[in-house]
Amino acid sequence: MITSSHNQQIKQILQLQKKAKARWQQRVFVVEGPKLVFEAPPERIVRLYVSESFYTQEKQRVRIGLLGCEVEIVSDAVFRMISDTQTPQGILAVVKMVEWQLEDLLPAGSAGADQRNDNRSSGTGIAGAPHLLVLENIQDPGNLGTMLRTGEGAGISGIVMNRETADLYNPKTIRATMGSIYRVPCCIVEHLKQAVGVIQEAQVAVYAAHLNGSVSYDQPDYRGGCAFLIGNEGNGLSPELAALADGRIRIPMEGKVESLNAAIAATLLMYEAKRQRRK
Amino acid sequence: MITSSHNQQIKQILQLQKKAKARWQQRVFVVEGPKLVFEAPPERIVRLYVSESFYTQEKQRVRIGLLGCEVEIVSDAVFRMISDTQTPQGILAVVKMVEWQLEDLLPAGSAGADQRNDNRSSGTGIAGAPHLLVLENIQDPGNLGTMLRTGEGAGISGIVMNRETADLYNPKTIRATMGSIYRVPCCIVEHLKQAVGVIQEAQVAVYAAHLNGSVSYDQPDYRGGCAFLIGNEGNGLSPELAALADGRIRIPMEGKVESLNAAIAATLLMYEAKRQRRK
Repeated sequence: MITSSHNQQIKQILQLQKKAKARWQQRVFVVEGPKLVFEAPPERIVRLYVSESFYTQEKQRVRIGLLGCEVEIVSDAVFRMISDTQTPQGILAVVKMVEWQLEDLLPAGSAGADQRNDNRSSGTGIAGAPHLLVLENIQDPGNLGTMLRTGEGAGISGIVMNRETADLYNPKTIRATMGSIYRVPCCIVEHLKQAVGVIQEAQVAVYAAHLNGSVSYDQPDYRGGCAFLIGNEGNGLSPELAALADGRIRIPMEGKVESLNAAIAATLLMYEAKRQRRK
Repeated sequence: MITSSHNQQIKQILQLQKKAKARWQQRVFVVEGPKLVFEAPPERIVRLYVSESFYTQEKQRVRIGLLGCEVEIVSDAVFRMISDTQTPQGILAVVKMVEWQLEDLLPAGSAGADQRNDNRSSGTGIAGAPHLLVLENIQDPGNLGTMLRTGEGAGISGIVMNRETADLYNPKTIRATMGSIYRVPCCIVEHLKQAVGVIQEAQVAVYAAHLNGSVSYDQPDYRGGCAFLIGNEGNGLSPELAALADGRIRIPMEGKVESLNAAIAATLLMYEAKRQRRK
């Protein structure tokens, strides 16, 4: 049992919780709580940590649910230190990242899918009409995580985001995904403008969510491939990115509301596409 | 200029920031930042506080924008103490609450509007078909605030919530409303079941957002009066409240998503009603 906060593994977990740089250097991240730990694909779990009292109460569950994973037991006091939450749930795991490429989010054989071929992730392109979310400079990890969760519900093919967007593996992002972090393909790109070009080459119509959009968000036909550009919480989309879109769509707003929260706007667009595709 | 943290006004603001009880005893709350302060109805501002450096830079704006309000200047160090944010914006106001009654959110002359007549708020019932949100035990102030903001955008008539819901005047709620706190009528009730009865007597159809809903959320006709029941983030609606609804609606979800965030679910319902009413 680990009882010292000076233990090297404990120091490493603290780094992973606090620093995006440490996560990306090691290509791993930390998930907390039974739901997120037990939903993790077992082959991606690097190591599992449970508090002494969690282990005492849930020995069977830990053994059966996570067969073959290395389990470290940690004193309750030390576990409270490594937890990112105020009321630690007594179980956390270090999990390997999966890195998706843009072509994994586009139909196999499309222009976009031909573009690159280093294929570090398992995908080889999607079946059916793509339904993408493209995020520019989203700042709030909670918003980002909520978009993954809602996006999975809406059946999106994946999310493309720039490096300036909040870290996908920030503990707050991960908590807000409620497990969708394992299932929604997310591709982080250096240049969003270039990515939008690749998406358009794959015959996907790109729509900018924009306060000055010319049509209401429920007017276009989203049954073919579609991608929604969502901008920063405070400033919206950059004019350069918005200019690339095939169409600008607006969400009607009453009262004195100047804009909607970014995750709320994304929700309405993704679920409008889903609504049309269900019919 | 106030330079001491022992100043009585400073102590009072700290209480108002931290304690719902203090807010409700005094029937006032604190708003921060230029946007929220300048959007406040001037007659509701009890007192205005600006940091020394904000006052130096924005003297004209403070004088013109808030004519007739009592302004206290506070040293930057003391202002940092009374601010609820990590990067204080240098201006905050103590604002009077407005208390709405259920009849203010229902059509004038309807059964509900007849029910009570102490009329502490200014309303005397709404015109047109009601569009209500009814919240049970929402825990997260950010979710609550987002529902006000999105609700104003969707043109709802108001929000009914129980006392177990997060405090409407929590600093996090207020921030998330982005100003809608001043404009969306919110009624806090002792007994939600009784309130639902009153709403139904006013010919408003009550729908429960429910994972086991029998119809998809976009099937019912919401052009008449409608109210949406939204339950707690972790547990959903209580069976007793859900049982009172005229219909149970579900939001289709793909993948392994078990539920959507409460504010996200509310958004989809409110905007579906708005979409139908726009046509």
